[in-house]
Amino acid sequence: MSRIRMIIQYEGTAYVGWQAQPNGLSVQERLEAELLKVTGEADIRLHASGRTDSGVHARAQVAHFDTQSRIPPDKFAFALNAGLPPDIRVAYSGPAPAEFHARFDVARKHYRYALWLGPHANPFLRHIALHVHHPLNLGAMEEAAAQALGEHDFGAFKAAGIEMKSTLRTIYESRWSMGEAPGLLYYHVCGSGFLYNMVRILVGTMLEIGGGRRGAAQMAEALSAGEREKAGPTAPAHGLTLWRVEYPGFDTEALILPESLSQSER
Amino acid sequence: MSRIRMIIQYEGTAYVGWQAQPNGLSVQERLEAELLKVTGEADIRLHASGRTDSGVHARAQVAHFDTQSRIPPDKFAFALNAGLPPDIRVAYSGPAPAEFHARFDVARKHYRYALWLGPHANPFLRHIALHVHHPLNLGAMEEAAAQALGEHDFGAFKAAGIEMKSTLRTIYESRWSMGEAPGLLYYHVCGSGFLYNMVRILVGTMLEIGGGRRGAAQMAEALSAGEREKAGPTAPAHGLTLWRVEYPGFDTEALILPESLSQSER
Repeated sequence: MSRIRMIIQYEGTAYVGWQAQPNGLSVQERLEAELLKVTGEADIRLHASGRTDSGVHARAQVAHFDTQSRIPPDKFAFALNAGLPPDIRVAYSGPAPAEFHARFDVARKHYRYALWLGPHANPFLRHIALHVHHPLNLGAMEEAAAQALGEHDFGAFKAAGIEMKSTLRTIYESRWSMGEAPGLLYYHVCGSGFLYNMVRILVGTMLEIGGGRRGAAQMAEALSAGEREKAGPTAPAHGLTLWRVEYPGFDTEALILPESLSQSER
Repeated sequence: MSRIRMIIQYEGTAYVGWQAQPNGLSVQERLEAELLKVTGEADIRLHASGRTDSGVHARAQVAHFDTQSRIPPDKFAFALNAGLPPDIRVAYSGPAPAEFHARFDVARKHYRYALWLGPHANPFLRHIALHVHHPLNLGAMEEAAAQALGEHDFGAFKAAGIEMKSTLRTIYESRWSMGEAPGLLYYHVCGSGFLYNMVRILVGTMLEIGGGRRGAAQMAEALSAGEREKAGPTAPAHGLTLWRVEYPGFDTEALILPESLSQSER
């Protein structure tokens, strides 16, 4: 039996999220169906770094599984991609230590939330960025983002009705940046872990602050109050992308960048 | 009767191209159907800067039409977008001089062709970039691109069977650049006008040069020979985007950039 870990990319538009749901197809089910085809093993179960909601995307989701197949670990990516639909790709596969666990071993996770600012929607960004057509005060949003840095009780920033042992989390990065084209704005957040809907509630709160419906200080107030009602609404799923996952000794960022451009003549 | 000009953006994946075809829905038909709904005028005809093929995208296509409607010229964008599918957007509408013609008055057109270089396809770029999974010699491709600059007979770079009065065209920009993310490569080309399939044949030829199946000098040879067989294959449609159109006194680039980000606090 060997343990394999993979980096998986998906545009989440057509799926009910990572995990199986009664109301549609999940990314996990689609991948497990392909693993069955490729290995012939009916009981292969994928363990991901965490769930992603319906409509949320992944640039670098990590999942592991155990198999008795003799397919070389690095060839699973090619074998699975041959049968996967084009909105799901395995960007990397390789051997993992027997004790590696994609969920329990996460050191840091990175998410990105994308906004498209313009009077009209953008056909090229419609699945991956939230369209905001009113003016935003970026200065106030930056101020609010900085308040989320460090260790806080993020109780106000989790979906109501979900009980957790602890709502303490540490945020290492929380900032806005201009995107690669005018009108694209990104929120980058990295943390030790995230509560359910936490990034989307952070963004929803900052959008209210940016739109002038709340002051920037209300981010800090919601953090200290710990009550869901003190934070803003949950921003739509489609602007959110699971960007990168870090483990001790394993970082998705180093493995998904292509090397096929010849450097010889540059 | 007043003349209106619009800047139109579309992801071409779902369409048979700009112009009506027997085998599916065109962007032009979809827009004309919406114009009928909005104005009640059954005979409104859109005139574009040029056709785009099935699967080709537009970041800034220009089209004009004449109408007796009392809708203010700048409101057509909002009125049409209310009914258009999300893969087609009117990014701008405004009044045009009575003698303006979207096709005949073009001064310069800009196209961009996108490549994704990586061992595996990219789910987020699958509709807008060609996936190339073998190494490319960018130096040779840059050399070939530079050979297309200036006035040339592009007879070797047009689809066979299409007769034109003249195949002389002037190219003002022809270069490759690294994209905003590692693995993205863009070809930028700007010219006085383009023959049918010209950009895709230029790219197809440079891909053969980059892949080592032709030398960089074969670009210049195809240009002087003027025979279609001397150039490379036609690159797939989905990597191509009509990027910008310039007219005397009217440039799409100045009109499609959003202004909704508040500058006050930055």
